[in-house]
Amino acid sequence: MPSYKLYYFNLRARAEPSRLILAAAGVDYEDVRIKRENWPAEKASGKFPLGQMPCLEVDGVMLAQSNAIARYLANEHGLAGKNNMEKARADMIVDTMGDLSPHLVKIIKEQDETKKDELKKEFTSKTLPACNTSLEKLLIQNNGGDGYFVGSELTWADLVFVNHVQRPLPGPSSVDAFPKLKALYEKVIALPKISEWIEKRPKTDM
Amino acid sequence: MPSYKLYYFNLRARAEPSRLILAAAGVDYEDVRIKRENWPAEKASGKFPLGQMPCLEVDGVMLAQSNAIARYLANEHGLAGKNNMEKARADMIVDTMGDLSPHLVKIIKEQDETKKDELKKEFTSKTLPACNTSLEKLLIQNNGGDGYFVGSELTWADLVFVNHVQRPLPGPSSVDAFPKLKALYEKVIALPKISEWIEKRPKTDM
Ligand SMILES: N[C@@H](CCC(=O)N[C@@H](CS)C(=O)NCC(=O)O)C(=O)O
Ligand SMILES: N[C@@H](CCC(=O)N[C@@H](CS)C(=O)NCC(=O)O)C(=O)O
Repeated sequence: MPSYKLYYFNLRARAEPSRLILAAAGVDYEDVRIKRENWPAEKASGKFPLGQMPCLEVDGVMLAQSNAIARYLANEHGLAGKNNMEKARADMIVDTMGDLSPHLVKIIKEQDETKKDELKKEFTSKTLPACNTSLEKLLIQNNGGDGYFVGSELTWADLVFVNHVQRPLPGPSSVDAFPKLKALYEKVIALPKISEWIEKRPKTDM
Repeated sequence: MPSYKLYYFNLRARAEPSRLILAAAGVDYEDVRIKRENWPAEKASGKFPLGQMPCLEVDGVMLAQSNAIARYLANEHGLAGKNNMEKARADMIVDTMGDLSPHLVKIIKEQDETKKDELKKEFTSKTLPACNTSLEKLLIQNNGGDGYFVGSELTWADLVFVNHVQRPLPGPSSVDAFPKLKALYEKVIALPKISEWIEKRPKTDM
Protein backbone atom coordinates (compact mmCIF):
# COMPACT_ATOMS: atom_id res chain seq x y z
CA MET A 1 0.00 0.00 0.00
CA PRO A 2 1.51 3.39 -0.96
CA SER A 3 1.81 6.16 1.59
CA TYR A 4 -0.71 8.95 0.97
CA LYS A 5 -0.60 12.53 2.19
CA LEU A 6 -3.57 14.72 1.25
CA TYR A 7 -2.95 18.48 1.52
CA TYR A 8 -5.72 21.06 1.69
CA PHE A 9 -7.10 23.85 3.83
CA ASN A 10 -9.21 22.89 6.84
CA LEU A 11 -12.29 22.60 4.61
CA ARG A 12 -14.38 19.92 2.95
CA ALA A 13 -14.87 21.68 -0.43
CA ARG A 14 -12.50 20.32 -3.09
CA ALA A 15 -10.72 17.74 -0.93
CA GLU A 16 -13.67 15.99 0.67
CA PRO A 17 -14.47 13.70 -2.29
CA SER A 18 -10.96 12.22 -1.94
CA ARG A 19 -11.37 11.89 1.83
CA LEU A 20 -14.71 10.12 1.33
CA ILE A 21 -13.12 7.77 -1.22
CA LEU A 22 -10.29 6.96 1.20
CA ALA A 23 -12.84 6.40 3.97
CA ALA A 24 -14.97 4.11 1.78
CA ALA A 25 -11.85 2.17 0.78
CA GLY A 26 -10.73 1.92 4.42
CA VAL A 27 -7.29 3.28 3.50
CA ASP A 28 -4.98 5.11 5.92
CA TYR A 29 -3.56 8.49 4.94
CA GLU A 30 -2.24 11.69 6.42
CA ASP A 31 -4.96 14.35 6.30
CA VAL A 32 -2.78 17.50 6.25
CA ARG A 33 -4.80 20.68 6.82
CA ILE A 34 -2.75 23.81 6.16
CA LYS A 35 -3.67 26.96 8.08
CA ARG A 36 -4.57 30.01 5.97
CA GLU A 37 -1.79 32.02 7.61
CA ASN A 38 0.81 29.41 6.67
CA TRP A 39 -0.34 29.07 3.06
CA PRO A 40 1.64 31.95 1.47
CA ALA A 41 4.92 30.40 2.66
CA GLU A 42 3.83 26.90 1.61
CA LYS A 43 2.76 28.19 -1.79
CA ALA A 44 6.10 29.98 -2.25
CA SER A 45 8.01 26.83 -1.28
CA GLY A 46 7.44 25.30 -4.71
CA LYS A 47 6.23 22.06 -3.13
CA PHE A 48 2.80 22.30 -4.79
CA PRO A 49 3.07 21.85 -8.58
CA LEU A 50 0.34 24.37 -9.43
CA GLY A 51 0.70 26.55 -6.32
CA GLN A 52 -2.75 25.37 -5.33
CA MET A 53 -4.41 22.67 -3.28
CA PRO A 54 -5.71 20.04 -2.93
CA CYS A 55 -2.61 17.94 -3.61
CA LEU A 56 -1.99 14.27 -2.99
CA GLU A 57 1.50 12.99 -2.28
CA VAL A 58 1.84 9.34 -3.29
CA ASP A 59 5.16 7.88 -2.17
CA GLY A 60 6.77 11.29 -2.64
CA VAL A 61 5.12 12.13 -6.00
CA MET A 62 2.85 15.19 -5.92
CA LEU A 63 -0.43 15.19 -7.80
CA ALA A 64 -2.58 18.31 -8.13
CA GLN A 65 -6.17 18.94 -9.32
CA SER A 66 -8.98 17.73 -7.11
CA ASN A 67 -10.72 15.57 -9.71
CA ALA A 68 -7.49 14.00 -10.96
CA ILE A 69 -6.69 13.08 -7.35
CA ALA A 70 -10.14 11.71 -6.57
CA ARG A 71 -10.32 9.71 -9.82
CA TYR A 72 -6.83 8.29 -9.17
CA LEU A 73 -7.86 7.13 -5.71
CA ALA A 74 -11.11 5.73 -7.08
CA ASN A 75 -9.22 3.79 -9.77
CA GLU A 76 -6.73 2.45 -7.24
CA HIS A 77 -9.39 1.33 -4.79
CA GLY A 78 -12.11 -0.12 -6.99
CA LEU A 79 -14.49 2.85 -6.82
CA ALA A 80 -14.18 4.20 -10.36
CA GLY A 81 -16.54 1.83 -12.19
CA LYS A 82 -16.04 -1.67 -13.57
CA ASN A 83 -15.16 -0.85 -17.19
CA ASN A 84 -14.43 2.16 -19.40
CA MET A 85 -18.11 2.91 -20.01
CA GLU A 86 -18.94 2.79 -16.28
CA LYS A 87 -15.91 4.99 -15.61
CA ALA A 88 -17.11 7.45 -18.23
CA ARG A 89 -20.58 7.55 -16.66
CA ALA A 90 -19.04 8.30 -13.28
CA ASP A 91 -16.94 11.05 -14.90
CA MET A 92 -20.02 12.52 -16.60
CA ILE A 93 -21.87 12.68 -13.28
CA VAL A 94 -18.89 14.17 -11.46
CA ASP A 95 -18.41 16.82 -14.16
CA THR A 96 -22.11 17.69 -14.06
CA MET A 97 -21.65 18.64 -10.40
CA GLY A 98 -18.32 20.26 -11.26
CA ASP A 99 -20.10 22.66 -13.61
CA LEU A 100 -21.41 24.39 -10.46
CA SER A 101 -17.90 25.29 -9.40
CA PRO A 102 -17.51 28.58 -11.35
CA HIS A 103 -20.85 29.74 -9.91
CA LEU A 104 -19.64 29.02 -6.38
CA VAL A 105 -16.29 30.71 -6.97
CA LYS A 106 -18.15 33.78 -8.24
CA ILE A 107 -20.28 33.91 -5.07
CA ILE A 108 -17.24 33.53 -2.81
CA LYS A 109 -15.32 36.26 -4.67
CA GLU A 110 -18.18 38.80 -4.77
CA GLN A 111 -17.43 41.59 -2.26
CA ASP A 112 -20.67 43.58 -2.62
CA GLU A 113 -23.11 42.04 -0.12
CA THR A 114 -26.22 42.88 -2.14
CA LYS A 115 -24.78 41.32 -5.29
CA LYS A 116 -23.55 38.33 -3.26
CA ASP A 117 -27.10 37.76 -2.00
CA GLU A 118 -28.49 37.98 -5.52
CA LEU A 119 -25.94 35.45 -6.74
CA LYS A 120 -26.75 33.13 -3.84
CA LYS A 121 -30.43 33.39 -4.58
CA GLU A 122 -29.87 32.61 -8.26
CA PHE A 123 -27.72 29.64 -7.28
CA THR A 124 -30.19 28.08 -4.87
CA SER A 125 -33.34 28.88 -6.86
CA LYS A 126 -32.10 28.14 -10.40
CA THR A 127 -28.57 26.81 -10.98
CA LEU A 128 -28.59 24.14 -8.28
CA PRO A 129 -32.13 22.82 -8.96
CA ALA A 130 -31.27 22.58 -12.70
CA CYS A 131 -28.18 20.56 -11.82
CA ASN A 132 -30.17 18.32 -9.47
CA THR A 133 -32.81 17.80 -12.15
CA SER A 134 -30.07 16.51 -14.48
CA LEU A 135 -28.60 14.36 -11.73
CA GLU A 136 -31.93 12.76 -10.89
CA LYS A 137 -32.49 12.02 -14.58
CA LEU A 138 -29.07 10.36 -14.80
CA LEU A 139 -29.73 8.40 -11.60
CA ILE A 140 -33.08 7.13 -12.88
CA GLN A 141 -31.41 6.02 -16.15
CA ASN A 142 -29.47 3.53 -14.07
CA ASN A 143 -31.80 0.75 -12.87
CA GLY A 144 -34.70 3.13 -12.30
CA GLY A 145 -32.78 5.17 -9.74
CA ASP A 146 -33.00 2.79 -6.79
CA GLY A 147 -29.34 1.80 -6.80
CA TYR A 148 -26.29 3.97 -7.28
CA PHE A 149 -25.35 6.41 -10.05
CA VAL A 150 -23.27 3.86 -11.99
CA GLY A 151 -23.63 0.11 -12.45
CA SER A 152 -24.66 -1.90 -9.41
CA GLU A 153 -22.13 -0.71 -6.83
CA LEU A 154 -20.91 2.39 -5.05
CA THR A 155 -18.56 4.58 -7.12
CA TRP A 156 -16.83 7.88 -6.45
CA ALA A 157 -19.70 9.61 -8.29
CA ASP A 158 -21.93 8.77 -5.30
CA LEU A 159 -19.31 10.16 -2.90
CA VAL A 160 -18.83 13.38 -4.87
CA PHE A 161 -22.62 13.60 -4.71
CA VAL A 162 -22.60 13.35 -0.89
CA ASN A 163 -20.23 16.30 -0.78
CA HIS A 164 -22.42 18.15 -3.29
CA VAL A 165 -25.49 17.67 -1.07
CA GLN A 166 -23.58 18.73 2.05
CA ARG A 167 -22.52 22.03 0.52
CA PRO A 168 -23.72 24.72 2.96
CA LEU A 169 -25.56 26.61 0.20
CA PRO A 170 -28.27 25.64 1.01
CA GLY A 171 -27.52 22.24 2.62
CA PRO A 172 -29.20 18.82 2.33
CA SER A 173 -32.69 20.35 1.99
CA SER A 174 -31.70 20.98 -1.65
CA VAL A 175 -32.60 17.38 -2.47
CA ASP A 176 -35.96 17.40 -0.68
CA ALA A 177 -37.70 17.96 -4.02
CA PHE A 178 -35.78 15.04 -5.62
CA PRO A 179 -36.94 11.80 -3.99
CA LYS A 180 -34.46 9.48 -5.77
CA LEU A 181 -31.53 11.78 -5.02
CA LYS A 182 -32.61 12.13 -1.41
CA ALA A 183 -32.84 8.36 -1.00
CA LEU A 184 -29.40 7.91 -2.56
CA TYR A 185 -27.90 10.55 -0.27
CA GLU A 186 -29.39 8.92 2.80
CA LYS A 187 -28.24 5.49 1.70
CA VAL A 188 -24.65 6.57 1.09
CA ILE A 189 -24.21 8.54 4.31
CA ALA A 190 -25.53 5.51 6.20
CA LEU A 191 -22.81 3.18 4.85
CA PRO A 192 -20.79 2.27 7.96
CA LYS A 193 -17.41 3.57 6.75
CA ILE A 194 -18.94 6.78 5.46
CA SER A 195 -21.04 7.50 8.54
CA GLU A 196 -18.02 6.78 10.72
CA TRP A 197 -15.90 9.32 8.77
CA ILE A 198 -18.65 11.95 8.76
CA GLU A 199 -18.96 11.47 12.53
CA LYS A 200 -15.27 11.85 13.25
CA ARG A 201 -14.10 14.38 10.65
CA PRO A 202 -13.20 17.95 11.67
CA LYS A 203 -16.34 20.10 11.61
CA THR A 204 -16.00 22.91 9.09
CA ASP A 205 -18.40 25.42 7.48
CA MET A 206 -17.76 24.15 3.97
CA MET B 1 -15.27 -1.73 -32.94
CA PRO B 2 -18.29 0.19 -31.58
CA SER B 3 -20.11 2.75 -33.71
CA TYR B 4 -19.39 6.30 -32.56
CA LYS B 5 -21.41 9.44 -33.25
CA LEU B 6 -19.97 12.68 -31.88
CA TYR B 7 -22.48 15.56 -31.63
CA TYR B 8 -21.47 19.19 -31.32
CA PHE B 9 -21.84 22.56 -32.95
CA ASN B 10 -19.64 23.30 -35.99
CA LEU B 11 -16.79 24.34 -33.69
CA ARG B 12 -13.55 22.93 -32.37
CA ALA B 13 -13.91 24.18 -28.75
CA ARG B 14 -15.10 21.43 -26.41
CA ALA B 15 -15.36 18.63 -28.99
CA GLU B 16 -12.00 18.93 -30.71
CA PRO B 17 -10.00 16.99 -28.10
CA SER B 18 -12.23 13.98 -28.80
CA ARG B 19 -11.87 14.46 -32.56
CA LEU B 20 -8.08 14.64 -32.19
CA ILE B 21 -8.09 11.46 -30.07
CA LEU B 22 -10.19 9.66 -32.70
CA ALA B 23 -7.83 10.93 -35.41
CA ALA B 24 -4.72 9.80 -33.48
CA ALA B 25 -6.34 6.40 -32.91
CA GLY B 26 -7.34 6.13 -36.58
CA VAL B 27 -10.92 5.36 -35.64
CA ASP B 28 -13.95 6.03 -37.84
CA TYR B 29 -16.87 7.98 -36.44
CA GLU B 30 -19.72 10.19 -37.47
CA ASP B 31 -18.81 13.84 -36.86
CA VAL B 32 -22.30 15.33 -36.44
CA ARG B 33 -22.27 19.14 -36.47
CA ILE B 34 -25.61 20.60 -35.45
CA LYS B 35 -26.54 24.00 -36.83
CA ARG B 36 -27.28 26.72 -34.25
CA GLU B 37 -30.77 27.22 -35.69
CA ASN B 38 -31.58 23.52 -35.25
CA TRP B 39 -30.27 23.32 -31.71
CA PRO B 40 -33.41 24.48 -29.81
CA ALA B 41 -35.42 21.64 -31.36
CA GLU B 42 -32.62 19.10 -30.79
CA LYS B 43 -32.26 20.26 -27.20
CA ALA B 44 -36.00 19.96 -26.61
CA SER B 45 -36.04 16.45 -28.10
CA GLY B 46 -34.62 14.96 -24.90
CA LYS B 47 -31.97 13.10 -26.88
CA PHE B 48 -29.09 14.85 -25.07
CA PRO B 49 -28.93 13.77 -21.40
CA LEU B 50 -27.91 17.20 -20.08
CA GLY B 51 -29.48 19.29 -22.85
CA GLN B 52 -25.95 20.24 -23.88
CA MET B 53 -23.23 19.14 -26.23
CA PRO B 54 -20.75 17.65 -26.89
CA CYS B 55 -22.26 14.19 -26.64
CA LEU B 56 -20.91 10.87 -27.80
CA GLU B 57 -23.24 8.08 -28.85
CA VAL B 58 -21.59 4.68 -28.39
CA ASP B 59 -23.70 1.90 -29.85
CA GLY B 60 -26.83 3.88 -28.95
CA VAL B 61 -25.72 4.94 -25.44
CA MET B 62 -25.38 8.70 -24.97
CA LEU B 63 -22.51 10.13 -22.98
CA ALA B 64 -22.29 13.84 -22.14
CA GLN B 65 -19.52 16.06 -20.72
CA SER B 66 -16.57 16.82 -22.98
CA ASN B 67 -13.87 15.54 -20.64
CA ALA B 68 -15.73 12.37 -19.76
CA ILE B 69 -16.09 11.69 -23.49
CA ALA B 70 -12.47 12.44 -24.32
CA ARG B 71 -11.14 10.37 -21.39
CA TYR B 72 -13.40 7.47 -22.39
CA LEU B 73 -12.06 7.52 -25.95
CA ALA B 74 -8.50 7.84 -24.66
CA ASN B 75 -9.00 4.85 -22.35
CA GLU B 76 -10.53 2.78 -25.15
CA HIS B 77 -7.76 3.58 -27.63
CA GLY B 78 -4.60 3.48 -25.54
CA LEU B 79 -4.13 7.23 -25.19
CA ALA B 80 -4.96 7.69 -21.50
CA GLY B 81 -1.63 6.66 -19.93
CA LYS B 82 -0.16 3.25 -19.10
CA ASN B 83 -1.19 2.96 -15.44
CA ASN B 84 -3.30 4.79 -12.86
CA MET B 85 -0.53 7.26 -11.99
CA GLU B 86 0.07 8.13 -15.66
CA LYS B 87 -3.68 8.49 -16.13
CA ALA B 88 -3.83 10.82 -13.13
CA ARG B 89 -0.98 12.94 -14.52
CA ALA B 90 -2.84 13.25 -17.82
CA ASP B 91 -5.99 14.22 -15.91
CA MET B 92 -4.07 16.83 -13.88
CA ILE B 93 -2.72 18.41 -17.06
CA VAL B 94 -6.11 18.37 -18.77
CA ASP B 95 -7.78 19.96 -15.74
CA THR B 96 -5.11 22.64 -15.54
CA MET B 97 -6.15 23.72 -19.04
CA GLY B 98 -9.80 23.22 -18.10
CA ASP B 99 -9.43 25.84 -15.36
CA LEU B 100 -9.36 28.42 -18.16
CA SER B 101 -12.85 27.49 -19.21
CA PRO B 102 -14.81 29.76 -16.81
CA HIS B 103 -12.64 32.69 -17.94
CA LEU B 104 -13.44 31.98 -21.58
CA VAL B 105 -17.15 31.55 -20.89
CA LYS B 106 -17.13 34.93 -19.10
CA ILE B 107 -15.51 36.59 -22.13
CA ILE B 108 -17.99 35.02 -24.54
CA LYS B 109 -20.98 36.04 -22.40
CA GLU B 110 -19.88 39.65 -21.81
CA GLN B 111 -22.08 41.96 -23.90
CA ASP B 112 -20.36 45.27 -23.15
CA GLU B 113 -17.57 45.60 -25.73
CA THR B 114 -15.27 47.66 -23.47
CA LYS B 115 -15.55 45.14 -20.67
CA LYS B 116 -15.11 42.28 -23.15
CA ASP B 117 -11.85 43.85 -24.34
CA GLU B 118 -10.62 44.24 -20.75
CA LEU B 119 -11.43 40.60 -20.03
CA LYS B 120 -9.64 39.51 -23.20
CA LYS B 121 -6.60 41.54 -22.26
CA GLU B 122 -6.53 40.06 -18.78
CA PHE B 123 -6.85 36.59 -20.26
CA THR B 124 -4.02 36.92 -22.78
CA SER B 125 -1.69 38.93 -20.55
CA LYS B 126 -2.21 37.15 -17.21
CA THR B 127 -4.49 34.12 -16.99
CA LEU B 128 -3.19 32.26 -20.05
CA PRO B 129 0.54 32.90 -19.41
CA ALA B 130 0.09 31.72 -15.80
CA CYS B 131 -1.52 28.53 -17.09
CA ASN B 132 1.25 28.03 -19.66
CA THR B 133 3.88 28.58 -16.96
CA SER B 134 2.31 25.74 -14.97
CA LEU B 135 2.07 23.56 -18.07
CA GLU B 136 5.71 24.07 -18.99
CA LYS B 137 6.73 23.21 -15.43
CA LEU B 138 4.70 20.00 -15.60
CA LEU B 139 6.15 19.16 -19.02
CA ILE B 140 9.73 19.64 -17.79
CA GLN B 141 9.01 17.38 -14.80
CA ASN B 142 8.57 14.56 -17.30
CA ASN B 143 11.95 13.62 -18.80
CA GLY B 144 13.15 17.22 -18.89
CA GLY B 145 10.35 18.30 -21.20
CA ASP B 146 11.65 16.85 -24.45
CA GLY B 147 9.07 14.09 -24.73
CA TYR B 148 5.35 14.26 -24.07
CA PHE B 149 3.39 15.41 -21.02
CA VAL B 150 3.03 11.91 -19.56
CA GLY B 151 5.33 8.89 -19.63
CA SER B 152 7.10 8.17 -22.89
CA GLU B 153 4.23 8.23 -25.36
CA LEU B 154 1.50 10.45 -26.72
CA THR B 155 -1.56 10.76 -24.47
CA TRP B 156 -4.78 12.73 -24.71
CA ALA B 157 -3.16 15.42 -22.53
CA ASP B 158 -0.95 16.30 -25.52
CA LEU B 159 -4.01 16.45 -27.78
CA VAL B 160 -6.02 18.63 -25.40
CA PHE B 161 -2.91 20.82 -25.36
CA VAL B 162 -2.95 21.16 -29.17
CA ASN B 163 -6.52 22.41 -28.96
CA HIS B 164 -5.52 24.74 -26.11
CA VAL B 165 -2.75 26.26 -28.25
CA GLN B 166 -5.05 26.61 -31.26
CA ARG B 167 -7.62 28.61 -29.31
CA PRO B 168 -8.10 31.84 -31.27
CA LEU B 169 -7.42 33.99 -28.19
CA PRO B 170 -4.62 34.70 -29.02
CA GLY B 171 -3.55 31.69 -31.14
CA PRO B 172 -0.31 29.66 -31.28
CA SER B 173 1.87 32.72 -30.57
CA SER B 174 0.83 32.20 -26.92
CA VAL B 175 3.52 29.51 -26.60
CA ASP B 176 6.32 31.56 -28.23
CA ALA B 177 7.65 32.44 -24.78
CA PHE B 178 7.57 28.77 -23.70
CA PRO B 179 10.19 26.87 -25.74
CA LYS B 180 9.37 23.39 -24.42
CA LEU B 181 5.64 23.89 -24.94
CA LYS B 182 6.23 25.28 -28.42
CA ALA B 183 8.38 22.29 -29.37
CA LEU B 184 5.75 19.89 -28.02
CA TYR B 185 3.00 21.66 -29.96
CA GLU B 186 4.99 21.50 -33.19
CA LYS B 187 5.84 17.86 -32.65
CA VAL B 188 2.25 16.81 -32.03
CA ILE B 189 0.70 18.70 -34.95
CA ALA B 190 3.34 17.12 -37.22
CA LEU B 191 2.29 13.55 -36.32
CA PRO B 192 0.92 12.18 -39.62
CA LYS B 193 -2.59 11.32 -38.38
CA ILE B 194 -2.91 14.64 -36.56
CA SER B 195 -1.64 16.79 -39.42
CA GLU B 196 -3.92 14.92 -41.80
CA TRP B 197 -6.95 15.66 -39.61
CA ILE B 198 -5.99 19.31 -39.09
CA GLU B 199 -5.63 19.62 -42.85
CA LYS B 200 -9.00 18.12 -43.68
CA ARG B 201 -11.20 19.25 -40.79
CA PRO B 202 -13.87 21.92 -41.31
CA LYS B 203 -12.31 25.35 -40.81
CA THR B 204 -13.98 27.17 -37.93
CA ASP B 205 -13.17 30.30 -35.88
CA MET B 206 -12.90 28.42 -32.61
N1 LIG C 1 -9.11 23.17 -10.44
C1 LIG C 1 -8.38 23.11 -9.19
C2 LIG C 1 -8.62 24.38 -8.40
C3 LIG C 1 -7.78 24.45 -7.16
C4 LIG C 1 -8.08 25.69 -6.33
O1 LIG C 1 -8.74 26.64 -6.79
N2 LIG C 1 -7.56 25.68 -5.10
C5 LIG C 1 -7.73 26.78 -4.19
C6 LIG C 1 -8.48 26.33 -2.94
S1 LIG C 1 -10.07 25.63 -3.32
C7 LIG C 1 -6.36 27.27 -3.73
O2 LIG C 1 -5.41 26.51 -3.62
N3 LIG C 1 -6.29 28.57 -3.44
C8 LIG C 1 -5.11 29.17 -2.89
C9 LIG C 1 -4.25 29.82 -3.94
O3 LIG C 1 -4.59 29.78 -5.14
O4 LIG C 1 -3.21 30.38 -3.54
C10 LIG C 1 -8.82 21.87 -8.40
O5 LIG C 1 -9.96 21.44 -8.61
O6 LIG C 1 -8.01 21.33 -7.64
N1 LIG D 1 -19.19 20.98 -18.88
C1 LIG D 1 -19.83 20.74 -20.15
C2 LIG D 1 -20.31 22.05 -20.73
C3 LIG D 1 -21.09 21.84 -21.99
C4 LIG D 1 -21.54 23.14 -22.59
O1 LIG D 1 -21.45 24.23 -21.98
N2 LIG D 1 -22.03 23.05 -23.85
C5 LIG D 1 -22.49 24.20 -24.58
C6 LIG D 1 -21.67 24.41 -25.85
S1 LIG D 1 -19.92 24.58 -25.53
C7 LIG D 1 -23.93 23.96 -25.01
O2 LIG D 1 -24.36 22.84 -25.27
N3 LIG D 1 -24.69 25.04 -25.12
C8 LIG D 1 -26.05 25.02 -25.62
C9 LIG D 1 -27.07 24.94 -24.53
O3 LIG D 1 -26.69 24.93 -23.33
O4 LIG D 1 -28.25 24.94 -24.87
C10 LIG D 1 -18.85 20.03 -21.10
O5 LIG D 1 -17.63 20.24 -20.91
O6 LIG D 1 -19.28 19.27 -21.97
